[in-house]
Amino acid sequence: MPVQDFTIDAFHRGRFFLVQPGARGHRAGMDAMMLAAAVPSAFAGRLADFGAGAGAAGLAVAARCEGASVVLIERAPEMAAFARRGLALPQNAGVAARASVLEADVGLTGKARVAAGLGDASFDFVIMNPPFNAGHDRATPDELKRQAHVMDVGLFATWIRSAAAVVRPRGGLAVIARPSSLRTILDAMDGRFGGAEIVAIHPRAGETAIRVVVRAVRASRAALSICPPLILHDAGDRFSAKADAINNGNASLFGD
Amino acid sequence: MPVQDFTIDAFHRGRFFLVQPGARGHRAGMDAMMLAAAVPSAFAGRLADFGAGAGAAGLAVAARCEGASVVLIERAPEMAAFARRGLALPQNAGVAARASVLEADVGLTGKARVAAGLGDASFDFVIMNPPFNAGHDRATPDELKRQAHVMDVGLFATWIRSAAAVVRPRGGLAVIARPSSLRTILDAMDGRFGGAEIVAIHPRAGETAIRVVVRAVRASRAALSICPPLILHDAGDRFSAKADAINNGNASLFGD
Repeated sequence: MPVQDFTIDAFHRGRFFLVQPGARGHRAGMDAMMLAAAVPSAFAGRLADFGAGAGAAGLAVAARCEGASVVLIERAPEMAAFARRGLALPQNAGVAARASVLEADVGLTGKARVAAGLGDASFDFVIMNPPFNAGHDRATPDELKRQAHVMDVGLFATWIRSAAAVVRPRGGLAVIARPSSLRTILDAMDGRFGGAEIVAIHPRAGETAIRVVVRAVRASRAALSICPPLILHDAGDRFSAKADAINNGNASLFGD
Repeated sequence: MPVQDFTIDAFHRGRFFLVQPGARGHRAGMDAMMLAAAVPSAFAGRLADFGAGAGAAGLAVAARCEGASVVLIERAPEMAAFARRGLALPQNAGVAARASVLEADVGLTGKARVAAGLGDASFDFVIMNPPFNAGHDRATPDELKRQAHVMDVGLFATWIRSAAAVVRPRGGLAVIARPSSLRTILDAMDGRFGGAEIVAIHPRAGETAIRVVVRAVRASRAALSICPPLILHDAGDRFSAKADAINNGNASLFGD
């Protein structure tokens, strides 16, 4: 990848910026903003962004939640490098003071995970936007099915198991995924996280959901609940007021 | 229960009637109507109403779907008697011609189930509104929790296993339940039913869902999807147009 193949993009109306790969590679967007919005605005503590990429979701939390310090955890060296370059931007000085990059594989287990910097009960919240969410968009329907079957189960189970290890009791977890992954996510949370709250994200009123955000509490035994959905667009093609507020870091997804 | 302790109630604006227990015992309402609405209006074939009570959901299907013949399956003799008395009402002649009562326990398995009249692959659709849905309403929060844990898992697993046995391949299943039962339902469907479609039912826009309807297809391997929610009430306390249409048998829940 040539050195100049990147862009610097403003998020939250200029409250933070990302250095991202250009035409090739995954570029952050709505998914990261909706995931970040699952964290309560009053959240204070240490948050891990699993599979952070260039840092979109984690930095969106840091920008909205002034008491949050975030660790952007990314396995791919080239994406971790983009995240580091983002933190080094002068215009990110505010959020960068409460952010760091950890180049590590969140799929590690046991001592290897701890040695990689992911200590037990060392975080107050974990957010995750698993990478295949993006991969699927470019896959053929057949590939999509195969990946959904093979990757979903393994990836979510592994990542959620890791989240359970690194989050303190009563700490939080938020996951964004396709609705087709809902059962896999709930099964992986079973016995580890409880009090799951689900927000379905629909492109328009009357249309099937394209994403689901599941938030849960470590070691809780509370029942699952289904929250009001998020409708992205009004009757026209404009963003709904709520989606716009979420995109710009002015609202949380669960209203807290 | 004294002989006179019953009421005759009109449903679907008088398109069918139920004989129901009076003050004591479970009386049918919105849950049964929303469950019935999960069946496509063009459905034609044999439908089983598991745990039919006085027959509300099954008769609602018979009233809206002219090609449906329904079997009201109820274990409790006193409730099965109410269902039979309902079918005998002169004003039910239209729907009663396509309805019958089977006094049987849908929790039976193997030969005992078949002997009770629930033959393998003998239905095109099963609907179920498990009885504890009502019991919960009168339970204390602690009882509620205990029941949710004990009854949910066992009851749903047993009933959905029975449904898988009696429904033909590509036949349908619809379940209404509390959102807290969602994972249990999806787990019980796994490997038996696919292409699950979820409708969350919210009292008002902006409020947490009180019910969830899950519809699925026997032996399908299609992915789960989340459909637009049903909002019961408008800003005032009036039913929304959609809820009113469903309550009165003029619309289906999934728009088909």
